[in-house]
Amino acid sequence: MADHSRPGEFDLIKKYLRPLASDESGAASLSDDAAVLPTKDGHRLVVTMDTLISGVHFFEFTPPHFIAAKCLRVNLSDLAAMGADPAYYTLSLSLPLNGEMTCDADWLDSFSQALAIEQDLYDIILVGGDTVSTPGPLSITITAFGWVKTGQEIVRSGATAGDLVYVSGVIGDAWLGLSAVRGGYPELEPASLELITERYHRPQPRLNLGHRLFGVANAAIDISDGLAQDLSHICKASNVSAIIQAGDIPLSGPARVLLEGDTHLINGLLSGGDDYELLFTVPPEWQQTVAGLAKELDLPLTHIGLIESSQQDHLVTILDEAGMKMNLTSTGYRHF
Amino acid sequence: MADHSRPGEFDLIKKYLRPLASDESGAASLSDDAAVLPTKDGHRLVVTMDTLISGVHFFEFTPPHFIAAKCLRVNLSDLAAMGADPAYYTLSLSLPLNGEMTCDADWLDSFSQALAIEQDLYDIILVGGDTVSTPGPLSITITAFGWVKTGQEIVRSGATAGDLVYVSGVIGDAWLGLSAVRGGYPELEPASLELITERYHRPQPRLNLGHRLFGVANAAIDISDGLAQDLSHICKASNVSAIIQAGDIPLSGPARVLLEGDTHLINGLLSGGDDYELLFTVPPEWQQTVAGLAKELDLPLTHIGLIESSQQDHLVTILDEAGMKMNLTSTGYRHF
Repeated sequence: MADHSRPGEFDLIKKYLRPLASDESGAASLSDDAAVLPTKDGHRLVVTMDTLISGVHFFEFTPPHFIAAKCLRVNLSDLAAMGADPAYYTLSLSLPLNGEMTCDADWLDSFSQALAIEQDLYDIILVGGDTVSTPGPLSITITAFGWVKTGQEIVRSGATAGDLVYVSGVIGDAWLGLSAVRGGYPELEPASLELITERYHRPQPRLNLGHRLFGVANAAIDISDGLAQDLSHICKASNVSAIIQAGDIPLSGPARVLLEGDTHLINGLLSGGDDYELLFTVPPEWQQTVAGLAKELDLPLTHIGLIESSQQDHLVTILDEAGMKMNLTSTGYRHF
Repeated sequence: MADHSRPGEFDLIKKYLRPLASDESGAASLSDDAAVLPTKDGHRLVVTMDTLISGVHFFEFTPPHFIAAKCLRVNLSDLAAMGADPAYYTLSLSLPLNGEMTCDADWLDSFSQALAIEQDLYDIILVGGDTVSTPGPLSITITAFGWVKTGQEIVRSGATAGDLVYVSGVIGDAWLGLSAVRGGYPELEPASLELITERYHRPQPRLNLGHRLFGVANAAIDISDGLAQDLSHICKASNVSAIIQAGDIPLSGPARVLLEGDTHLINGLLSGGDDYELLFTVPPEWQQTVAGLAKELDLPLTHIGLIESSQQDHLVTILDEAGMKMNLTSTGYRHF
């Protein structure tokens, strides 16, 4: 645990964060300069890092337990996309000295309690980090570590012409949820509003799915920037193109209701971020395996398109229900 | 590489950061959700994380090459204190959208060029990270990874009554350098001013020393919060106390000159942060070994005090040249 700090950092760490670090892991506790990670026979360590900032990735009024869940889960989603099992994380907290958001002892208490619940849920423990003061907004960086069997990681670059494009769960709810948190969609029923805001606040990292995709999927990515944008990342890395059917994109009940009222919403549903579903490509001969996996995991896995050989004029083509090319007004989630 | 982002992030990453990631390492390149770290027989991975923020850990006017060096080196210093060899790092850049500091393409170019030089110097490579926009100040978080032979990590908790307390290099220059950057000490000669500002801007992680301390030192820490504060961390973790002689603290020429002019400076020299020297405790029978190490590494290693059994009334006692207990006005480096 690094020690350039704010007044009272040591007390804060001891009281709120140290209980999150267990020595059972074999990793050194938070009392040292650094943590020593164990090894695991036949496995390699996968590492990912994400920063979430107040006013950018969450609101100043977002309750600390949602912030805790999201900042950990966006990292776990990256591990899921690689087929890795979560194991450890480090946490850097930049706490605002002033500003509208007060990260006082109550805030830290709620935040660390929520992290403890997440740790139990995903079998991951805190092994180190840093706490600093900032004149800016609350900022949280997590580096997460997971184990993958040697050689069994799933990458973005394996997509092959002829692969079927699949997506897990439903798409666009988090984007709708973001609007709902801002007071949008008052016409929705309370249960529907709750569903989409929950999807925005608490993504479900598809770890069980990612864990099973090795040998089935040629390429995978988690959808953080929007389906269209993230599919283009696979295409770029794999030097292929993709064509998808907008009508095949799986949507939730509330999303269907809203789309009926405003067909332009399809833009946002396909390009809005924060879904944290997995997008993956599968050789056609594994189609039945994917269907079995969906049943076993009780998770929709929907065939939405096809990987083609690299096309000069596009990476990703989206066809509407009439078979016409759609032009998304935005091809990815952009903050600000 | 995570992808919640600012406009043009992908281009920025590609242009400036991707060249810092080499596939030779066996770690996945920046094109994936996460990096897969290699294993190393008989070694374990040490991990540390530090955040540096503009206006807190460096100035808005600090040139990007100094920022790059410092944000990497403070992490390497943590690895040094554990006896680990640097290998990889992940980088999260929070770039200000507005504000006085403009992190434009020129800034990113200088910053990434400086990182490339640091990478060569310390044999470490970038394996992943994140880039986000912030309404706040520039903020940089690095998670650094190093290898240590299994069971040969040095911890804070091994100090034993009777151990001699040693410190590497000289103490307090970085604290003086911080004042000099702010326009202080105009009476110093230019060469002296340059020496202390360089010590503030570019700490020297004592990696060669840390690497040799296993089997010699019972405990070690790097001095980031000030000598007195960091020694108290060793004492707490080891359940011992320490007594040190202020007159034995190694000082640079400029520090001696300034201390002659103002004896109260001793407070700041002992409690100011950012030295990034190693503080370590050694059983008396290894005194000759330490002397040999100092000669071999061409680095002063100075005996400054003694570890005692745990005392009720203090963790760290500092005696002045008359043998009187000193009361430091501050026992550690506090930002703000």
